[in-house]
Amino acid sequence: MIEVYMKKAIDIANRGSGFVNPDPLVGAILVKNEKIVGQGWYKFFGSERAEVMAIKSAGEDTRDSELFINIEPEIDEKYDEYISFILNSGIKRIYIGIPNPRVGRGGKAEEVFKPLGIEIEYGVLKNECEELNEIYTHYINTGTPFVFTKWAMTLDGKLASRTGDSKWISSEKSLEFVHHLRQRVAAIMVGENTVRLDNPLLTTRLEGVVISNPLRVIVSKYGDIPLNSNILKVDANTRTLIIASEKIAIEKEVELKNYGVDIIKLRERQGKIQFEDIVKALGERNIDSLYIEGGSSLLASAFESRVVNKVYAAIAPKIIGGKDAITPVGGVGIEKMNDAIRLSRVTHQIIGDDVIFKGYI
Amino acid sequence: MIEVYMKKAIDIANRGSGFVNPDPLVGAILVKNEKIVGQGWYKFFGSERAEVMAIKSAGEDTRDSELFINIEPEIDEKYDEYISFILNSGIKRIYIGIPNPRVGRGGKAEEVFKPLGIEIEYGVLKNECEELNEIYTHYINTGTPFVFTKWAMTLDGKLASRTGDSKWISSEKSLEFVHHLRQRVAAIMVGENTVRLDNPLLTTRLEGVVISNPLRVIVSKYGDIPLNSNILKVDANTRTLIIASEKIAIEKEVELKNYGVDIIKLRERQGKIQFEDIVKALGERNIDSLYIEGGSSLLASAFESRVVNKVYAAIAPKIIGGKDAITPVGGVGIEKMNDAIRLSRVTHQIIGDDVIFKGYI
Repeated sequence: MIEVYMKKAIDIANRGSGFVNPDPLVGAILVKNEKIVGQGWYKFFGSERAEVMAIKSAGEDTRDSELFINIEPEIDEKYDEYISFILNSGIKRIYIGIPNPRVGRGGKAEEVFKPLGIEIEYGVLKNECEELNEIYTHYINTGTPFVFTKWAMTLDGKLASRTGDSKWISSEKSLEFVHHLRQRVAAIMVGENTVRLDNPLLTTRLEGVVISNPLRVIVSKYGDIPLNSNILKVDANTRTLIIASEKIAIEKEVELKNYGVDIIKLRERQGKIQFEDIVKALGERNIDSLYIEGGSSLLASAFESRVVNKVYAAIAPKIIGGKDAITPVGGVGIEKMNDAIRLSRVTHQIIGDDVIFKGYI
Repeated sequence: MIEVYMKKAIDIANRGSGFVNPDPLVGAILVKNEKIVGQGWYKFFGSERAEVMAIKSAGEDTRDSELFINIEPEIDEKYDEYISFILNSGIKRIYIGIPNPRVGRGGKAEEVFKPLGIEIEYGVLKNECEELNEIYTHYINTGTPFVFTKWAMTLDGKLASRTGDSKWISSEKSLEFVHHLRQRVAAIMVGENTVRLDNPLLTTRLEGVVISNPLRVIVSKYGDIPLNSNILKVDANTRTLIIASEKIAIEKEVELKNYGVDIIKLRERQGKIQFEDIVKALGERNIDSLYIEGGSSLLASAFESRVVNKVYAAIAPKIIGGKDAITPVGGVGIEKMNDAIRLSRVTHQIIGDDVIFKGYI
């Protein structure tokens, strides 16, 4: 049963997806006499703690109950007050999915609560809990965003037809899957070619849920972006950041800023803006996760720089042909098949006739 | 239980794979008192019938037994003798997977045996029996070979790296799957570019089984094939046919024929050898099945000419990059994604980390 309760904690943790970054997703389930008596989740950055919400939701009698929480609580601010609250609830045991890589001033949960008579058990549904907070863990450990890529391609390897038409390669259900990914990340990135060709909105479109739009990041060396582009339409919930070269013309910079977009200027190295510098700059701005949607050359640079952590690729059983049609990853390419980047921990999800590959680098 | 017996008939029918073309694969199971008492399969073109082998293998008492056979027997030569043999066995019922599109002089099995007191039931595991003999059915109905294509590509849509290296994209198990396909067909085709680049053997390499090499068919307009190519090494079990233009130089034709290869010369239309003409010519030579392995332009021509019936595509979770790396289907390509060729009856087979898509056009 403990796995079932932890799974439930993971499920409700996910409700905070897109709202808590760069904090972790947290879900808490309170169980007494084999019944769920309380639940809570971390709703948005700075909101009440999941476990506090769970205890409050349980009402009066929480004595001798068990708490299931997907990640170890970070015992930081107001920790005396927090510890008293937990102790007063009478919880007898805390099941924790994974340790927290960030240890608060109050110390590790184990060191705090064990001496106070609360049993602590780590490692319930460890793998699932790790995947749930892979963004957080990566960001805390490296200071740079966890980088996803995704593409949808035809069964003959094309991102778009020879004329650039890509609507729609994958099925509606696969597209929805993509929008769920967008919902999850702090920032979403495309290259300026994609802006010119597709004029994307890069917002999260999901029916029936409150959404959080990720920051839209455009890599554009000299700001060569059509002024009627959708990504230049900025409001409080739909922001845009342009990554440019420090050599961008000052007039161009001013012109773009007038649209309300932000600009980060980076030094060129070997005549290029380097991806290592991009992820570093984004990490410094509290961007814990980046989702590169394309196009082909931007993805090639990302793979060459080895900044990609996780790949999603949807394949639809369609054939479009065309030796000049664009493939997902362009650039120069690797010479020997033996040196190809191999994904690890690969899983396959079949959605209708499409298959979505998921894997890590 | 009748599905279980029919499945068994399909399984043993498959033992004839690659040896019976252009006849159908046939397996027969004889059941009495819920026990399998006899089995037989059509072993090679012109060998004993599956049901005759099954009855003989059952020994003495076949009275009141039931026969399971995946395709209706064609009652043709020596049909008096054949009908007597079946009657004498005392079989009371025949379960048939699918009707035979080719009706022998003796008439349909139903018309022959019903009046003689044997019950006949059609349609057991119909779909599986149809797929088993899709080659045969197509060939009988159209006079042209059933055309398969297959490719193995990386997750970023490449058949090979930018330098043409394709060894090995897919896993060993996926490769074995490919060799099973080769085993099944009468002919296997590549273009002259593939001969030049990969110098393939195009033989069936399977461990521990007797193999039958398909006819190797090379499309080469003017016979421009390096004289040290593996496909020019011909013996009784490893033959080669070159499809050339009628404008091929006579010296070239003589030179190639000296290696023991066959040549079919076809008229050019719009400056090209047309795929419709190729499959027609192959059909006239009793080639009931053709397996196009590549390369990219040959596959494009095949899809443009709409001669492809079935697609196998293996996708391996590797990323190689390269805007100039070759994709599975080249050529001009279709303009609108909406006009893309969509596969139907799609199935997915997961082999390790690879996925093999299978579908029909």
